[in-house]
Amino acid sequence: MEATEFKEAIQRRKLIDVLLDHHQFADLVLQGGYVINTVTREIYEADVAVKGEYILLIGDAKDLIGSSTTVQDVQGKFISPGFIDSHMHFESAMLTSTEFSRLSIPTGTTTLVGDPHEIGNVLGVHGMQEMIKEAKTLPNQVYFTVPCAVPDAPGLETSGEDVDARHMKELLQDENVQGIGEIQSFSNINPVFQNAPEIIDDLVASVSYANSIGKTVEGNAPGLFGKELAAHIISGGTHISCHETTTKEETVEKLRYGVSVFMREGSSQRNMAECVRAIKEEGIDSRRAIVVSDDMVPEDLLKDGHMNDIIRRTIVEGIDPVEAIQMATINPATHFGMKDVGVLAPGKRANIAVISDLNEMTIDKVYLNGVAAAEKGELTIDLPAYTYPESVKTSVKRKPVEAGDLHISASGSKARVRSIVAIPDQNLTGAKEFDLNVSDGIVQPCLKQDVLPLLVVERHGRSGKIGKSFLHGFKLQNGAIAESVAHDTHNIIVTGTNYDDMVTAVNRVISMNGGIAMIKDGKVVGDLPLKVGGLITDELSGKEVSERVGELSQLAKDVLGCGMHVPFMHLSFWSLVTSPEWKITDMGLIDVDKFEVLSAVVE
Amino acid sequence: MEATEFKEAIQRRKLIDVLLDHHQFADLVLQGGYVINTVTREIYEADVAVKGEYILLIGDAKDLIGSSTTVQDVQGKFISPGFIDSHMHFESAMLTSTEFSRLSIPTGTTTLVGDPHEIGNVLGVHGMQEMIKEAKTLPNQVYFTVPCAVPDAPGLETSGEDVDARHMKELLQDENVQGIGEIQSFSNINPVFQNAPEIIDDLVASVSYANSIGKTVEGNAPGLFGKELAAHIISGGTHISCHETTTKEETVEKLRYGVSVFMREGSSQRNMAECVRAIKEEGIDSRRAIVVSDDMVPEDLLKDGHMNDIIRRTIVEGIDPVEAIQMATINPATHFGMKDVGVLAPGKRANIAVISDLNEMTIDKVYLNGVAAAEKGELTIDLPAYTYPESVKTSVKRKPVEAGDLHISASGSKARVRSIVAIPDQNLTGAKEFDLNVSDGIVQPCLKQDVLPLLVVERHGRSGKIGKSFLHGFKLQNGAIAESVAHDTHNIIVTGTNYDDMVTAVNRVISMNGGIAMIKDGKVVGDLPLKVGGLITDELSGKEVSERVGELSQLAKDVLGCGMHVPFMHLSFWSLVTSPEWKITDMGLIDVDKFEVLSAVVE
Repeated sequence: MEATEFKEAIQRRKLIDVLLDHHQFADLVLQGGYVINTVTREIYEADVAVKGEYILLIGDAKDLIGSSTTVQDVQGKFISPGFIDSHMHFESAMLTSTEFSRLSIPTGTTTLVGDPHEIGNVLGVHGMQEMIKEAKTLPNQVYFTVPCAVPDAPGLETSGEDVDARHMKELLQDENVQGIGEIQSFSNINPVFQNAPEIIDDLVASVSYANSIGKTVEGNAPGLFGKELAAHIISGGTHISCHETTTKEETVEKLRYGVSVFMREGSSQRNMAECVRAIKEEGIDSRRAIVVSDDMVPEDLLKDGHMNDIIRRTIVEGIDPVEAIQMATINPATHFGMKDVGVLAPGKRANIAVISDLNEMTIDKVYLNGVAAAEKGELTIDLPAYTYPESVKTSVKRKPVEAGDLHISASGSKARVRSIVAIPDQNLTGAKEFDLNVSDGIVQPCLKQDVLPLLVVERHGRSGKIGKSFLHGFKLQNGAIAESVAHDTHNIIVTGTNYDDMVTAVNRVISMNGGIAMIKDGKVVGDLPLKVGGLITDELSGKEVSERVGELSQLAKDVLGCGMHVPFMHLSFWSLVTSPEWKITDMGLIDVDKFEVLSAVVE
Repeated sequence: MEATEFKEAIQRRKLIDVLLDHHQFADLVLQGGYVINTVTREIYEADVAVKGEYILLIGDAKDLIGSSTTVQDVQGKFISPGFIDSHMHFESAMLTSTEFSRLSIPTGTTTLVGDPHEIGNVLGVHGMQEMIKEAKTLPNQVYFTVPCAVPDAPGLETSGEDVDARHMKELLQDENVQGIGEIQSFSNINPVFQNAPEIIDDLVASVSYANSIGKTVEGNAPGLFGKELAAHIISGGTHISCHETTTKEETVEKLRYGVSVFMREGSSQRNMAECVRAIKEEGIDSRRAIVVSDDMVPEDLLKDGHMNDIIRRTIVEGIDPVEAIQMATINPATHFGMKDVGVLAPGKRANIAVISDLNEMTIDKVYLNGVAAAEKGELTIDLPAYTYPESVKTSVKRKPVEAGDLHISASGSKARVRSIVAIPDQNLTGAKEFDLNVSDGIVQPCLKQDVLPLLVVERHGRSGKIGKSFLHGFKLQNGAIAESVAHDTHNIIVTGTNYDDMVTAVNRVISMNGGIAMIKDGKVVGDLPLKVGGLITDELSGKEVSERVGELSQLAKDVLGCGMHVPFMHLSFWSLVTSPEWKITDMGLIDVDKFEVLSAVVE
């Protein structure tokens, strides 16, 4: 039980007095707008009366207007419950939740469900708790779904801290923690079942504990059907979501299996259009269809908006506006069991989006807990920047590397090597062997074949290992790029056209205590310090990060001659061992489906 | 945390093995039927594979069939999740939950949410706990929503035990307790607000506590709109139901206000046809429309069925069969946050109704927790009768009454008296004054005007009071009827054409330790002992109760000349002080809206 629950009880009791005592009045009345009812799927004219943080009444509110009531004329406008982003990572934006909210609130998004598994991989429980602590300072509703298994693949990669069933009580007890996040440790069903069934035991234990204390669990079932999908659903306690559904057929199967399909439509991966075909073409009940962003970069938040833009795009796909809004309001609120948001009704939290153009989803004004918080895209409340404690800013625990550390050795003059094959705009990769020259016992990068060394340098002060492999398809012409953003364990990943620049790039990341560094001829071409866990900056605003990333991307193209767009994002995913085919971790080149480590050089 | 949760975790883990290990198989496969998907609102051909108590898979189950798998051919039949009755009182059927279940399970109803507020009024926490104890012996899912305020109207009536915020922890902690039941202590909004605001404080306290431990709360808002409805919703924590909604307009308003409308369609009150007009005529999203029985008599259960019959009637009203089934499956499961029922999907409880005719809702076979439990209307599992302990069978704590106790006195030869006016098939009553003869200081019944004494004799050993008033419209010609079923405090209510038979009737109820008694000329015309709390029999089956009640009704008509049908049920509701206009309790004649006690004789 939380003190906030007592506060709510007291405030609820007072609302009853305001409604029934003819001498008490509302604080705020939005008058004459068209209310979007997300339960009945209707639009009708009604006033919205607010007292304190809560909605008093939707209907004719003239009896509730007193001399101190603020009356806001909203004629011709649409009044919607604030939107919910049910699955997102602050780390993807490299922003604190404060800076993310600064961009998100004006878009009508009033509830965020963050998944802090990136910082969890680096700093474990402590890092996630610091992120939760920040969220409690914010005026919007910010909840978290926390990982129950870090790292994703024990034995195949090294995280900064481990998280498993032993940490669930400590993590889940916080009232801002909604439950367990995407259970990707059991996404890759058969290899885990065959090779590491103890992962499933631990997972089911954590899930069962979470459910027993009333917390929810989210799934992660890309490409799963039939028995494999069933096994994943059961491992998650049967009431789960999936945010990595990419085809209509998968959407139909998952909805039929009772899964809430989180139709992803963020900055990088956009699956909503394909997923909503299940609704449009099959006439399926959409109550468990939900739109989420997953990953948003600041540039897109600034340019297009957040959930309002995702709803707009859902409308463009042919979904009725109110049904599209249901997918970002009542549907997620119901999925999570959030009783105070998702619909405008008596006693609910007064989180309101005033919309001037329904099809364009133009957000005129936003109320948070009854307070006018944003107007015409700008925050109208004070939201001080948040500074993280030093304890989360010293996460790079590694002495500088030397050239010899990174060299990939082989005997003779030629070596057959194993190389990850980059696939643009995908987390998954291909796998291919190449023949490279060897000089002085060191395998040489080959620009002609576009095969470069790709390494992961452990930076958590644990294994101390450096995993080595090759990368084909990055189209880099000069220098090196290194970053401490490298899913999911976030060691330092580096690639380059020469070992010396790679050494300098890694050491630059180490000296910044995390971030992104581009080096050419031993000199820094550009960098971005990300001190909070090596993932997030608490020194820059969303706008500044957006500009800096834009500059870095341009420099990568112009100075390093990189032919792959958003190179930092692509690079960061080649260490993700939960999606096939070959990936690289500090333990070496990983064959994801076989659950085994391969050598970079074929022996 | 409950031991059953650990069991579920262990079983869940084993299900994963069965799905992924090619050497393990399902226990049961229903092959080739049409599955009713309550999430997607679809019907399609699919197998249903079951292991132990749970569903493994819906789809092509041929890989899961081994040598020990029972394969059931269900071609041409419809496979639905078992039905949920979200609001019902076992006391209305006068049956133990065992005998109720014996009639209910074969109808495809696999989950019952009982509201034990009748026995709670008589025996308080102990009585309800004994009822919950019985439920734990049953194979179907039986949950309870318990009252948080007994009596409904403190100061205006005397219950056997009081229940308030102090009892919530003890009551709500049981895993079979879903939450707080219909909060009728605040149905009569304005009188309570004006006269007894402390009731609201206590209510909000109980509701807040329930919500804080993850339990739900049900409302009771007959006839409420606008501010009054909003106040009631807020008092219940905002996520509530109402099962006393009787008009289309009320249905629309409540659904818009976020209330789950429990469309009642039981033995006595039938509101579904009117309520579903909101769905049919306004095209409203039906996700929060739910069908419930509230009160069922054994005769109807035997003759027509239970939830299958309510669904059938909903289909007759023009609702698509799958949508109608949603109203008794996924909609209530979602309302209550029940994660294991309401949809046939992997890991859900294998509670299954096999339907041979969808429009007629003919139930061919029923599975409970994976076990075939009923076929063609008959239970196929052993279900021993349940016997209650003596502690709940001695609830009538009153010495026999004498004529002088019941006499209504007045001076002179004529008296102007206040009389409740019976309204057939309604809980609510009228109010009227009559002039009656007085003989020897005693007001005489008047058959010509159809005005009889109507008294409530306290029987809980507390106030010892006898409340007195008159009744118009019962059309009784001879004798007297008394019963210990008298909502909601269940004292002994009695009416009759002469005081002597009334005395005998009351004393017969006392000597039986509760029940119904009809007396003529000092002799017992018929009776029905209801020893459990004076409300329920644990000595008769549903069939026997049905026959006995039929006989008593016939005798009331033939021997006592009673012109009102189902006289016992009508009589039992004239003491219910939560609905207008005049009612009778042990404290006297109650003006419900004014919250005050009136004298039977106008002074």
